[in-house]
Amino acid sequence: MGTRTHRTVLIGQGNVATLLAERIDAEHFPLTKVGGRQRLCPIPKDADLYIIAVSDRAIRSVAEEIGAVEGLVVHTAGSVPMSILPQQRRGVLYPLQTVSKNRELSSLQVPLFIEASSDADLPLLEELAHGISTSVTPLDSDGRRKLHLSAVFCCNFVNRLYGIAGDLLSSEGLPFKLLLPLIRETASKVEYLSPSEAQTGPAVRWDTEVMDYQCSQLPNEDLKALYKLMSKLIHDDKLRLEKHTSTRL
Amino acid sequence: MGTRTHRTVLIGQGNVATLLAERIDAEHFPLTKVGGRQRLCPIPKDADLYIIAVSDRAIRSVAEEIGAVEGLVVHTAGSVPMSILPQQRRGVLYPLQTVSKNRELSSLQVPLFIEASSDADLPLLEELAHGISTSVTPLDSDGRRKLHLSAVFCCNFVNRLYGIAGDLLSSEGLPFKLLLPLIRETASKVEYLSPSEAQTGPAVRWDTEVMDYQCSQLPNEDLKALYKLMSKLIHDDKLRLEKHTSTRL
Repeated sequence: MGTRTHRTVLIGQGNVATLLAERIDAEHFPLTKVGGRQRLCPIPKDADLYIIAVSDRAIRSVAEEIGAVEGLVVHTAGSVPMSILPQQRRGVLYPLQTVSKNRELSSLQVPLFIEASSDADLPLLEELAHGISTSVTPLDSDGRRKLHLSAVFCCNFVNRLYGIAGDLLSSEGLPFKLLLPLIRETASKVEYLSPSEAQTGPAVRWDTEVMDYQCSQLPNEDLKALYKLMSKLIHDDKLRLEKHTSTRL
Repeated sequence: MGTRTHRTVLIGQGNVATLLAERIDAEHFPLTKVGGRQRLCPIPKDADLYIIAVSDRAIRSVAEEIGAVEGLVVHTAGSVPMSILPQQRRGVLYPLQTVSKNRELSSLQVPLFIEASSDADLPLLEELAHGISTSVTPLDSDGRRKLHLSAVFCCNFVNRLYGIAGDLLSSEGLPFKLLLPLIRETASKVEYLSPSEAQTGPAVRWDTEVMDYQCSQLPNEDLKALYKLMSKLIHDDKLRLEKHTSTRL
């Protein structure tokens, strides 16, 4: 199969579509790009592969527009089940990354997760995926939804914590960039330690004096509630780890 | 002053003491290391500089043991005010980092924040600090406490979110390392975008369908509460940004 070419239609104009357009091996997957909602030209009907890289809510209507084709139709969303696609030959190609405009994409590592309604279609998705990324894992719709949920915690929520930290600093007239070495190292540590092993700070020591003082310094009730909840979760994890360790002794 | 030597005593045996012992310019700050609580030898009384790098709760007793010396006495804690030290010549040398055992320290960037009770002692701390780090900022005790609080959010709390994400993945039999490219990129993005600009995910789009589903998948009430609170904080920040932008137009 590696020497065949597969005529491919990529629908979308957002960050994921841009990423895929830049990465797809055009020699084996000659690409026709079709814009998103405001596209002017119709979608070709004779392609071997259709990649729907539009917002979650627009996937169904794009799939219906593609209609009854012989090619394989895939979407790229984390939390949308494969079954939203009406086609019989359907699948998913999910890139686990946070893509923003203006980001230099060439060095970005993008783990891919693939699913196909038929085992016979998995090799085609694998060939496509291996041209895009060195990390390719088959995963069904339930697993992919759980993966997307975990990404919300370690990307979207983490990013907001960066913002809260920056807001606290700017109230002292200090620039956000002072936090960058700490942010970098916190991300680097979990490459060789588990998050539980890497945990530091007042909550893991359960230093109530520091914790009470810090909580009192927060500017609103939401942040105080967040401080208490995160501290509890850190402490619970430590107790869980200790119990687990002592049980194994 | 750069050619003088300053006899220095470093008290402590934890991660910060290890970091400082490795970084301090021993030519200009000849170092006597004294262990933490279980030290065997007495603390010399004739040093020019004493660095107390012990746990927050032990600072006061170590400072009292040092007693009335002529040298400058500093501690290294984020949330402990300089005034805890009984000496007249006192100060703080606070490294903003998360240091764990087994970490190769040589390449670690460590922003330092310094404070001294007398302006006359600031140059000595500056000379010491510039030998350790390229990033040195004077900051008073209130500012340092706020800095430490912001570090709790972007390091300690972030690390726990990594752990929660990993726990969710392992419930699907997937390894934590699949998240590392996303964790790395989330940390890298805020080097060139503000956290508000870098925000992605269902909460910033206020995609209630995905959010309700994701929340329902979480295994306990604490995580559901955390999911709702973080989503609200992300959305509030977006509204604040939009309001700010439209006000400026």
